[in-house]
Amino acid sequence: MHGLMQDFPLLVHRVLDHAARWHGTRSILSRSVEGPLHRTDYASVNRRARALASACERRLAIGKGAIVATMAWNTWRHIEIWYGVMGLGAIVHTLNPRLFKEQLTYIVNHAEDRWIFTDLTFVPLLEELQDSIPDIKGYIILTDEAHMPDTALRNSICYETLIAGGDEEYTWPELDENTACGLCYTSGTTGHPKGVLYSHRSNVLHGLMCALGDAMALSSRDAAMPVVPMFHANAWSMAFSAPIAGASLVLPGPKLDGPSIYEMLDQGRVTISAAVPTVWLMLLNHLEKNGELRLPHLDRVVIGGSACPEAIMKAFVENYGSDVIHAWGMTEMSPIGSLGVISGEAAKLSQKEWWTLKLKQGRPPFMVDMKITDDAGNVLPHDGHTFGRLKVKGAAVARSYYKGEGLAAFDADGWFDTGDVATIDEYGYMQITDRAKDVIKSGGEWISSIDLENIALSCTGIQEAAAIGLPHPKWDERPLLVVVRKQEAVITKADVMRHLEGRVPKWWMPDDVAFVDEIPHTATGKISKMELRATFKSYRFPES
Amino acid sequence: MHGLMQDFPLLVHRVLDHAARWHGTRSILSRSVEGPLHRTDYASVNRRARALASACERRLAIGKGAIVATMAWNTWRHIEIWYGVMGLGAIVHTLNPRLFKEQLTYIVNHAEDRWIFTDLTFVPLLEELQDSIPDIKGYIILTDEAHMPDTALRNSICYETLIAGGDEEYTWPELDENTACGLCYTSGTTGHPKGVLYSHRSNVLHGLMCALGDAMALSSRDAAMPVVPMFHANAWSMAFSAPIAGASLVLPGPKLDGPSIYEMLDQGRVTISAAVPTVWLMLLNHLEKNGELRLPHLDRVVIGGSACPEAIMKAFVENYGSDVIHAWGMTEMSPIGSLGVISGEAAKLSQKEWWTLKLKQGRPPFMVDMKITDDAGNVLPHDGHTFGRLKVKGAAVARSYYKGEGLAAFDADGWFDTGDVATIDEYGYMQITDRAKDVIKSGGEWISSIDLENIALSCTGIQEAAAIGLPHPKWDERPLLVVVRKQEAVITKADVMRHLEGRVPKWWMPDDVAFVDEIPHTATGKISKMELRATFKSYRFPES
Repeated sequence: MHGLMQDFPLLVHRVLDHAARWHGTRSILSRSVEGPLHRTDYASVNRRARALASACERRLAIGKGAIVATMAWNTWRHIEIWYGVMGLGAIVHTLNPRLFKEQLTYIVNHAEDRWIFTDLTFVPLLEELQDSIPDIKGYIILTDEAHMPDTALRNSICYETLIAGGDEEYTWPELDENTACGLCYTSGTTGHPKGVLYSHRSNVLHGLMCALGDAMALSSRDAAMPVVPMFHANAWSMAFSAPIAGASLVLPGPKLDGPSIYEMLDQGRVTISAAVPTVWLMLLNHLEKNGELRLPHLDRVVIGGSACPEAIMKAFVENYGSDVIHAWGMTEMSPIGSLGVISGEAAKLSQKEWWTLKLKQGRPPFMVDMKITDDAGNVLPHDGHTFGRLKVKGAAVARSYYKGEGLAAFDADGWFDTGDVATIDEYGYMQITDRAKDVIKSGGEWISSIDLENIALSCTGIQEAAAIGLPHPKWDERPLLVVVRKQEAVITKADVMRHLEGRVPKWWMPDDVAFVDEIPHTATGKISKMELRATFKSYRFPES
Repeated sequence: MHGLMQDFPLLVHRVLDHAARWHGTRSILSRSVEGPLHRTDYASVNRRARALASACERRLAIGKGAIVATMAWNTWRHIEIWYGVMGLGAIVHTLNPRLFKEQLTYIVNHAEDRWIFTDLTFVPLLEELQDSIPDIKGYIILTDEAHMPDTALRNSICYETLIAGGDEEYTWPELDENTACGLCYTSGTTGHPKGVLYSHRSNVLHGLMCALGDAMALSSRDAAMPVVPMFHANAWSMAFSAPIAGASLVLPGPKLDGPSIYEMLDQGRVTISAAVPTVWLMLLNHLEKNGELRLPHLDRVVIGGSACPEAIMKAFVENYGSDVIHAWGMTEMSPIGSLGVISGEAAKLSQKEWWTLKLKQGRPPFMVDMKITDDAGNVLPHDGHTFGRLKVKGAAVARSYYKGEGLAAFDADGWFDTGDVATIDEYGYMQITDRAKDVIKSGGEWISSIDLENIALSCTGIQEAAAIGLPHPKWDERPLLVVVRKQEAVITKADVMRHLEGRVPKWWMPDDVAFVDEIPHTATGKISKMELRATFKSYRFPES
């Protein structure tokens, strides 16, 4: 027997409708790509999103199921495109302009994008790409007629002119809540990028989840600034969660440097903001240089994208009185998987224990579940030290990639294998300890390459360190520690080993230390273990 | 094209699973019906809910779609029954023991209940009823063997013995999220009570909605005490929202008097609690009598069920430092429709304006929408003074009553007519001004009977007042004010009219004042306008 409740599909444009009707005057402050700050509100953005939807249908023949790309910063216009295009039943494909040109070309063609909405910033890049993406019917440039560039782009259209011809009273079509509405590619270290296809339902549930008390705790008293780009996995949900909560939005546009971010925090009286560690480091440097600057409004700082250095987190808490929330997620998770908000049970801990938890990646909110398993799939305990492959499921977790690619990551039992290795402690705090492909498997036990590296880095004289597993006749794999010395440092294998002794379990001790001049890195600045393993392919451990 | 996200049905037992896995040691403190306080946690309650589900299936042959009634206070056992019975795919029908016996008999038979879970308190009542509810197969008494009563109930079963025979590792069946899981009857002033049939999806979405920042703002740092009974429309969602948020639960069992509620607030370090004004009045009286008592933990007080007197709200804010949240809803809305949390835009108001908003019934959270219309269905403005019929829709709003009754309340366009008349102001705050059937329709304009009564009550010498509309040849209806004088008060029609002048719009002035010894009331203590209109059926206004 079914319940007798109203049919209320979870559609993303209902989020904007709610904000427009019940929080219509809450502001949306943006740094425009043209330069000046721009202020609007939810009621206006809703009208313009509807106008855009009608213009897309009538003028560009964009209909249900069409795929439309954006290459744009976080501004009010990008918000309008999200809600307008998703609302008409089409799919917004956010392009990351930082990808290599070959990747962008591959992605646009693979996704079968038909139109690209682009900020002025990216017109030159798209001019270069346009011959390799011939199925694009035209380019909508996010500006007004006064700022339209002289461009070689085929069929370039002025965004403000397009929207001016639309109908602000446009009625959203009825849609099934499982209709696709967003597409974002994730680039692994191997193979082509793979697309994650979000649905209206998954985005709305993810937006609700992220607004909850142990996630971002958003309310209509907040001003939320996603510094994390909307092309970076849904801006960590803030573009959905803020209007759900009636929080105002502050959007930093193209400028992510310290002084610019400070200006937006100050002008927008931002209470919560989300960004990667690098952005926060730039802000903190700016604040330190200008000792009189404070962050009186900033209550919560969400940090994710990569593990956050302790110094950044402590600076916010101890120098500026802002709480920090370490978050973890993946494009495949929409992207939030866990947040390091201190739970009620953990609230009684000492300051030191509190920081230990804070530095972990946090706990899953309702509608995400996670487990750690060994290679055979056996569930491992939540004891804070056993580590295993991290697997997740949830209302906003992918069940396959676009066009059926990369199926190996999706278990038959409905769990997505994140490719990460993690521990989970008794309070439910998860900590990433390694990538599964980098963990060192010695005699059936796992050694965290990241832990080894971090402990090695605390040794005087070491500039950079990388731990890799190399074949071993008896133990399967044993760790090799690859080290770059600090300039003019004199440090030997014996020094390194002495430093590690007592700091890591005995059986984690590297079988050898190799000194090199340089460790190879990927395009995004991470250590390329793949390349390193290739370099040391013929290496043999000394006889012990 | 559909999104490629995991299938994650919104099922209520996922809520308990989440709490058990990630907030397993968060406590559930109850006053037991047997007497002593009882402490358990989410992990235990989850194991017992599963054991109960398996015992229901195996021993009582309760399967998917079966309807099982509860007549029980808020305790951990009632929580176990909710999650256990809903989780196995059956439906929990909460019976309100305060209804008339005839109504209870009607409801149990109409719902086709098959088993009743009952607290010890209600065994005598059910013994009286059992012959009139012959289809009940048996009664599960919520206690252990030591406390089992000597009862005439047919097939009475000890709850603790039942659960002891169940399997704590029971696996929940797979269910469609639209599966019915809860049934609650609402008794109007006319006709039989009508059933509202909740689904897993509607309960989970409602639970999420109520946990949001502008609703109850729940987190795992909270201890939530629903004083409002679980048989009173889902305990205003707290039994779902608290485990969603990881908040601990405090359950007051059978004792709702001031000292008992204070004890639970204190022992459970309750941070948020919800109840009707009467309960809060009893608590405040107890606190006033014991001047040294404080409420150091209580951060938020949710008040609903009927309009809350200003004195109660101010006492919490001004004397005890707790915020008050005026809430409004209906059984048909699961039940929350709006909450009087001060929004970001309204936060800049003066103290006086703030209180004006606080006394209103609040704003709808995301997933509820509301509008006010005139009799022809035209939407009326949000200006704070135009009032119209209040209509709602949302993810947890009924689309019909059980067995298709009372269809008139459900518009063809998907809005549920609440039967209330309300205003909505520029900030989105809704205020109930009348019941639609009591509003006085004069020359096409509406006069609020409640406003007239409240203003009349502020006149010295008036004990009670009721305004009703009576037929008028020219204006359709005109107001008659029916007044009970205070003992020994000497007050005339002219005195009353002088008091009203300038306090109400000119055309609201009653055409006559009738003095009576007594005003008729309903069983729940409200003025019976229906009876009053019958009394004055032959009354004619004086010629003006």
